[in-house]
Amino acid sequence: MLCRFPYSSILCGIRFASNFIISSQALQLISKPSKSMTSGYKAWLINDYTWNDTDVITNIMALKLYSYWRSSCSWRVRVCLALKKQEYEYIPIHLVKDGGEQRKESFRNVNPMAQVPTFVHGDVIISQSMAIMDYIDNKFEGYSLLPKDLALRAKVKEICEIICSGIQPIQNLSVLQKIGEANKMEWAHHWIQSGFDSLEKVLQKSSGKYCVGDDITMADACLVPQVYNANRFKVDMSKYPNISRIEKSLAEQPAFIKAHPDNQPDCPQK
Amino acid sequence: MLCRFPYSSILCGIRFASNFIISSQALQLISKPSKSMTSGYKAWLINDYTWNDTDVITNIMALKLYSYWRSSCSWRVRVCLALKKQEYEYIPIHLVKDGGEQRKESFRNVNPMAQVPTFVHGDVIISQSMAIMDYIDNKFEGYSLLPKDLALRAKVKEICEIICSGIQPIQNLSVLQKIGEANKMEWAHHWIQSGFDSLEKVLQKSSGKYCVGDDITMADACLVPQVYNANRFKVDMSKYPNISRIEKSLAEQPAFIKAHPDNQPDCPQK
Repeated sequence: MLCRFPYSSILCGIRFASNFIISSQALQLISKPSKSMTSGYKAWLINDYTWNDTDVITNIMALKLYSYWRSSCSWRVRVCLALKKQEYEYIPIHLVKDGGEQRKESFRNVNPMAQVPTFVHGDVIISQSMAIMDYIDNKFEGYSLLPKDLALRAKVKEICEIICSGIQPIQNLSVLQKIGEANKMEWAHHWIQSGFDSLEKVLQKSSGKYCVGDDITMADACLVPQVYNANRFKVDMSKYPNISRIEKSLAEQPAFIKAHPDNQPDCPQK
Repeated sequence: MLCRFPYSSILCGIRFASNFIISSQALQLISKPSKSMTSGYKAWLINDYTWNDTDVITNIMALKLYSYWRSSCSWRVRVCLALKKQEYEYIPIHLVKDGGEQRKESFRNVNPMAQVPTFVHGDVIISQSMAIMDYIDNKFEGYSLLPKDLALRAKVKEICEIICSGIQPIQNLSVLQKIGEANKMEWAHHWIQSGFDSLEKVLQKSSGKYCVGDDITMADACLVPQVYNANRFKVDMSKYPNISRIEKSLAEQPAFIKAHPDNQPDCPQK
């Protein structure tokens, strides 16, 4: 599923291409297989397909995700891109090394807010995971990330926000750095528990196999990374049977396997 | 614009109603003019209209907002309801008095998460301001809270999230209570400044008269309450010329005047 920026694969793609029209961008890609054109960072292509026509290459060139393997906000977006079966260029930004690669000028030129995820689709550059997921859902055909029924859609968005504004921001890396090493475990533990107490009640009513009914939605893309964080901070998950049950079902889904931190190119070797 | 739960106004409404068919709910409303049917709290009707037909009463009965005058998340929703020219029943929940009215069982029966805003539209109960605003925009005709163009829409959502997940949750009441009285000013100051540093850069590119171009959007509904918080925590707003300029323009708009904390029925007498 995951291939290192593939000089040989691109050549392989060219070999199989029928009516191959190469763009200057694609030429640049081929001539610098281990560098992203825009950032100077190493990049990888995430795809499910063989390289056998120009469309695939053009499409991949157009979609870029600046991500960090363990960033829960990046993870949400990776799930949605996988559900939509969209290939993209994965550009890792290490949030800790050298004081955080996100602070480097080369990345600030892409996103002056210096945050991942940053999603690039042609000329459109979007920050903030909820905004990116909304864009992906509206822009690309295929699997729908939100129900059509407005009441159900509101429930999905409510669950997203319980996590994305009610829990994660209060226990994210920059807040924990300010809280300090001595207190960060208690702090993160407290806010995740408090949020999960509410979320569990909501899911008691809304969930079927997944967060809202039996279809995977944007809410599920938010849930899984938050459970991963809960485990990192030793939250007792036995208190949350619905959250645990749904997370277990989702973990087996191909899109969630693909988006998992362990399967990202910048995940340190175990 | 604002009328206390109007026993006399309802009678006035009945007097002018032509084909008035009164529901059991409406009868209950008239017999208990100072109480909300569902919560036991005092409630007010927010409307721009005279009571002159059944539709208005039915509509008002259907829309309820559990709110607190100074809650910035409730404020965002009030702006959107005002932009959509929707009348609604305003049910104040005092977040501080008696340890917080949101924790009372009567309110937990409506929203087990014990949070404002809580929006009720018939059988649909929604928590989380971004989910509520999304629902309001999709459900009700009239002024559109989001641009149709997907790139602009993403920019609006990005700005909303910079505020609603990137700033406000880290300086909200419950977090400040945990930080403690001695440190809360420095804490709130730090996170609002850090968020506004990013937001100012985004607005440099995106803004016209308002946050994104020259039309008022959901992003503006999020901006104004956050500036109010910045002023409460003595953030030096002279560093943020775009944020300040936009907030000043918005403050003169009728929807923003109507939604301002000072104009809510539960605002303490000055």
